[in-house]
Amino acid sequence: MGCKSWGSRTLVFWCFVFSLIHVSLGSKARHFKWEVEYIYRSQDCLEHVVMGINGQFPGPTIRAKAGDTVVVELTNKLHTEGVVIHWHGIRQIGTPWADGTASISQCAINPGETFQYRFTVDRPGTYIYHGHYGMQRSAGLYGSLIVDVADEEKEPFHYDGEFNLLFSDWWHQSVHEQEVGLSSNPFRWIGEPQTLLINGRGQFNCSLAAKFSNASVSQCKFRGNEQCAPQILHVRRNKTYRLRIASITALASLNLAIEGHKMVVVEADGNYVQPFAVDDLDIYSGESYSVLLRTDQLSSNNYWISVGVRGREPKTPQALTILNYFPTSASKLPTSQPPVTPPWNDYNHSKAFTKSIFALMGSPQPPRTHHRRIILLNTQNRINGSIKWSINNVSLVLPPTPYLGSIKYGLNNAFDQKSPPDNIDNSYDIMKPPVNPNSTYGNGIYTINLNTTIDVILQNANALAKDVSEIHPWHLHGHNFWVLGYGEGKFREEDEKKFNLKNPPLRNTAVIFPYGWTALRFVADNPGVWAFHCHIEPHLHMGMGVVFAEGVQHVGEIPRAALACGLTANKQNLD
Amino acid sequence: MGCKSWGSRTLVFWCFVFSLIHVSLGSKARHFKWEVEYIYRSQDCLEHVVMGINGQFPGPTIRAKAGDTVVVELTNKLHTEGVVIHWHGIRQIGTPWADGTASISQCAINPGETFQYRFTVDRPGTYIYHGHYGMQRSAGLYGSLIVDVADEEKEPFHYDGEFNLLFSDWWHQSVHEQEVGLSSNPFRWIGEPQTLLINGRGQFNCSLAAKFSNASVSQCKFRGNEQCAPQILHVRRNKTYRLRIASITALASLNLAIEGHKMVVVEADGNYVQPFAVDDLDIYSGESYSVLLRTDQLSSNNYWISVGVRGREPKTPQALTILNYFPTSASKLPTSQPPVTPPWNDYNHSKAFTKSIFALMGSPQPPRTHHRRIILLNTQNRINGSIKWSINNVSLVLPPTPYLGSIKYGLNNAFDQKSPPDNIDNSYDIMKPPVNPNSTYGNGIYTINLNTTIDVILQNANALAKDVSEIHPWHLHGHNFWVLGYGEGKFREEDEKKFNLKNPPLRNTAVIFPYGWTALRFVADNPGVWAFHCHIEPHLHMGMGVVFAEGVQHVGEIPRAALACGLTANKQNLD
Repeated sequence: MGCKSWGSRTLVFWCFVFSLIHVSLGSKARHFKWEVEYIYRSQDCLEHVVMGINGQFPGPTIRAKAGDTVVVELTNKLHTEGVVIHWHGIRQIGTPWADGTASISQCAINPGETFQYRFTVDRPGTYIYHGHYGMQRSAGLYGSLIVDVADEEKEPFHYDGEFNLLFSDWWHQSVHEQEVGLSSNPFRWIGEPQTLLINGRGQFNCSLAAKFSNASVSQCKFRGNEQCAPQILHVRRNKTYRLRIASITALASLNLAIEGHKMVVVEADGNYVQPFAVDDLDIYSGESYSVLLRTDQLSSNNYWISVGVRGREPKTPQALTILNYFPTSASKLPTSQPPVTPPWNDYNHSKAFTKSIFALMGSPQPPRTHHRRIILLNTQNRINGSIKWSINNVSLVLPPTPYLGSIKYGLNNAFDQKSPPDNIDNSYDIMKPPVNPNSTYGNGIYTINLNTTIDVILQNANALAKDVSEIHPWHLHGHNFWVLGYGEGKFREEDEKKFNLKNPPLRNTAVIFPYGWTALRFVADNPGVWAFHCHIEPHLHMGMGVVFAEGVQHVGEIPRAALACGLTANKQNLD
Repeated sequence: MGCKSWGSRTLVFWCFVFSLIHVSLGSKARHFKWEVEYIYRSQDCLEHVVMGINGQFPGPTIRAKAGDTVVVELTNKLHTEGVVIHWHGIRQIGTPWADGTASISQCAINPGETFQYRFTVDRPGTYIYHGHYGMQRSAGLYGSLIVDVADEEKEPFHYDGEFNLLFSDWWHQSVHEQEVGLSSNPFRWIGEPQTLLINGRGQFNCSLAAKFSNASVSQCKFRGNEQCAPQILHVRRNKTYRLRIASITALASLNLAIEGHKMVVVEADGNYVQPFAVDDLDIYSGESYSVLLRTDQLSSNNYWISVGVRGREPKTPQALTILNYFPTSASKLPTSQPPVTPPWNDYNHSKAFTKSIFALMGSPQPPRTHHRRIILLNTQNRINGSIKWSINNVSLVLPPTPYLGSIKYGLNNAFDQKSPPDNIDNSYDIMKPPVNPNSTYGNGIYTINLNTTIDVILQNANALAKDVSEIHPWHLHGHNFWVLGYGEGKFREEDEKKFNLKNPPLRNTAVIFPYGWTALRFVADNPGVWAFHCHIEPHLHMGMGVVFAEGVQHVGEIPRAALACGLTANKQNLD
C-alpha cells in the first residue's frame, strides 16, 4: 500500500513530501486497490455466488487512524453491472462525491473502469462499507471499516484486546431474482433469510448446537478450513475485550447475547456513549456498537456467542460462534444450550435497550432549537398493483443522473424540481391500514439551507395489512444526528417538550418502533446531497427513502468520473 | 407507433413532413418504445427469470419494409446492469453507433436511461436482434427482425403464407452464475442446455412425444395458455409456406426436420440463394434461413417439427412442435415418432448441407482479388489457469471505452494501439493440442483501409484436449461476406485456386468445421468499428473474437449518448 501504486517519479517525489507532512501531523494516506467481482463462496456450507472484493467475502477490513486519508482504487470487474461503495458512517466532509451512492453522489462505476474513493476518516469508531446500487449489498458487497484514535489520542475506556463482529443475513435466492420479485405484479416478498452470518460465516445445513436443539438438524463437523466454519474468539480469563459489532443485514433485526457474560456498551455508530451494561444487545441494520466484555467466567469452559432475529417472526436459526477461554480447547462445545433470543415481538425489551443509550458526558450537544421540522410518514402502499413503501406518499425512484452533479450544474430536467412535502395530512390515522393505499413514484428532494438545524420526525404507521407495523432503521448519510426521543402513536407538537436536549446520543442510524415516532436533530453543515433511508435493503428498493440537498453551491469540483452518466455525461451541460 | 411519441408541435410538424417524404419513397419510419427488464417466464414449463422486452419473451418481432427506418427507443429498466441491443444482419450503413455492441459501437445504456436506435433496414430478409453485453443474449434478450421487400419489389419466389421460427437454448443456471464459472479458476463450463426453445417455448419436464420415447418422461398436457405450450403451425394442404428460421442459441448447433416434408432453401442471412431441397437443415447460432415448405402430405394427419443438437454430443431433448393440417385437430398427435436428428458428429452431413448453398443468380459477385489477407487461427488456451479462446494467440477482452468513440477522437490510451497479427507461426500444428497453451489477453484491433477487399481465413485447430476440435459459427458485423470455400486441415496458399468466385453465397455468419478452414471475402465499404466473433455466447465471453476498424474518420457525428462512458465521457477528450 502506501505510495507504491503511484506511477511517475514526480508523483513518487510528491508522495514522499506529502508523507512527511502527514507524518508530522500524525496522519497518513492509506491506499487500497480493490477489485469487485462475483466469486464462489460456501459461507453457509452451501456454495453460492457472492460479490467479493479481491476474492474475499466479506471484503477486506479497512483499518485507519482518525485523521487519515483513505484512498480506495475500486475496479469494477463485474461483466454488466455498475458498482459503487458507500462508506457508512463516514461523513465525507468536503468530499460528497465519495459517499458512494449511485444516482445520488456519483455515477455507478462501469464494468472495466476504476474509480478513486478518497476521503478523510475524521473520527474514530466502528464503521461499515457496502454497495449502494440496486441490492448489491444483499449480494455480499460489504465489509468493516475501523478507525482507531489518532496517535496522540486515547479512547475513554481501556481494553486488552479486541474482536470485530460483522453480522449479515443471507438468502439462497439470488439478488437478481429477489429484485424481480419485489418489482413484480403480483408482488413477491423475499421472505426471511436462510442463514445469519457472523463475519460472513454461518451454518445452513448443520448446527454448532445440534445436541441442544429439538429440530432434526445435524451437528456441524469441520475439518479445518471450511468457509462456513465459525470464527472463534480466543480469550484469556480476567481480561477486558472490545467487541466491535456492526450489522449489515438486508432485513433482519438482531439480538446478540454471550452466554454468562455481560456487555458494557461504550460506542454507537462511531460515537462514545455513557457506558451501560446489558445481558443482550439489539442491533439493527446499519448500526454499530462497541461493547466491553470482561472474561470473568470459568476458563475451563467455552461459551456461546449467539445472534438471533428480532422484530419479525424468526424463521432463521440463530447464528453461533464460540468464546474460547485459554487453555480450554477451542473444539470443546459449551455445556449448555445457547442463549435464547428474547421473543421477537417483545418490543419493550427493544425499547428499553434503545432508550438506555445516552451520549458520553462531554459529547457535542444539540442546538436548543430547530430551523425547520420535517415530518416523514412511513407508509406501505400500492402502485399499479405492486407493493411499495412511501414517505409522505412519495415512493422514491432514483433518477439516472446523480443529484450531486445535476444540482451543481443546474440541470433542472434531471429530476422533479418540486419538493416532497414537509408534513402530511394531519388526519392520517397511523393506527389503521391506509384508507387510500395508492401512492406515487417520485424523485423530488428536500433542499435544506446550509448551517440550519433540521428536526426530522420519523412517523411510523400501520402497513397494508391490519395490525401490522414494522421496525425500520433509518440511516442518514453525511451526518450524525441526535436522537431526541422516541414516542408512541402519532407525534404531537407537545411531544417536543419531552425531547432530550441534555445528552441525546449521536447516531447515523435510528429505528422507528411499530406505531411510534422517533425525533432526530442534525445541523446541515456538510455541503452535498445525502440519502436518508430505511436501511432494510428491500424496503429501500421499494422506495423507502428521501434525499437531502444542502449547500451544493459550496461543493468543490466534482471528479469528472463521478459525472460520467446521464445528463452530466453531456459535456454541453457542464460548460 | 408512427410519430405518436414525438413531443412538441414542431416535431409533430416535421414528423408529418418526413412522413410525406417517406410515403413518396414508399418507405417510412417505424417507431417502437421498448423497456428491457427481467420478468418471470415458464418457457420450459419451469419458472425462470428471463430478460424480457415490454414484458415479452422473446422480445416483440419487428416487421418493416426494405428502405424503412427503424427507430427503437430503448429504456433500460434493469436495476444495476447496462444494456445494448445488436441488430444482427443489419449493416448499419452510416449509423455504426447503432450496431448495439457494448465497448465497440457504444456505451452500454445505464439503468433508467433511454437510447434511441435509429437505422435503415436496406435489404429484405430474416434477421435477429439480441443483447450484446456480457452474456445478456443467453439471459433471453433476443427477438426477430423481419424485413419485407419494398412495396415496388417482389421476392424471387412465391408463397401462400409464412411462419417465423426462432430457435434458442436455455439453461437453468442463471447467466450471472454461468459468467462466474466461465471466469473462475478452476474453470467451470456451463454444460449443455437444459431445454431447446422454438419461439421461446420448450418442454423440460414433459415431452410432446413421450409415447415414442424410451426415456421415462411424461406426456405433456396443456390446458391452454401455458407459456411452454408449443406454437403450432396451422396449414392447409397443397399450399406453399415460407418458414423464416433463425437460431440465436448460446451454444447449440441445431438441425431442423419436418416429418414427411422437404424444405427448399431460398434465403440465408438476408441473402437469396439458389433454391435447393433438403430433408433436414443444419443451422448454427447467428444464422437465418428461409425455406419453402409444400404441404403435400395427407391432411388427415399432423406432422412433427423437430429440432435437435448437432456438433456436440447432445444431452438436450429435441424441441418439438406440430405442423397441423386443416381440418385435422391441432391436438391430434402425429402417429409416428419425430424425425431423428442426424448423428451429432456426422460432419459430412453438415458439410454437404453447407456446401450446397450458392448465391442466387444475379447476386452481387465478389471482387476477383483481395488487398489483404488475414488468417485467424482459433485456439483454446489457458491464461492464469482459466480456459480461454484465442485468435492468433490473443484472447479478446473489450475495453471500457468503446472503440468507435475512442478511435474517432484519437484517444490512443483507450486500448492497445498495437494490432494483433495478420497471421500465425507457420509451424503451428493444428491437428494437435497446443504445445504451449498459454495465451495473452488483448484489446488491440485490426485497422482496415476503407474500400479495400479483405480475405479472412478462419483456421480451426485442435482444442486443449486431444482429438477435440469444435464447430464455431463466426459472425461479422456491418457487412455481408462471400463464403469462398471450406477446406480440411491447414489452409495453404494453393487452396486459393479452389475458391468459388462465381456464385459464393453472401452471409453474415459462417462456420468453421473441426480441423478445417473457411475462406471469406468482404469489401470494407462501411465506416465504423465492427465485431467479428464466434457466435457461441460463452466462447465470445472467453475471448473468441476480433475487432475491425474501417474508415472511422468518415463516420458522422456519433450521438453523445453513445459516448457517455470511459474516456469519451470526459468532455476534455472530445474538445
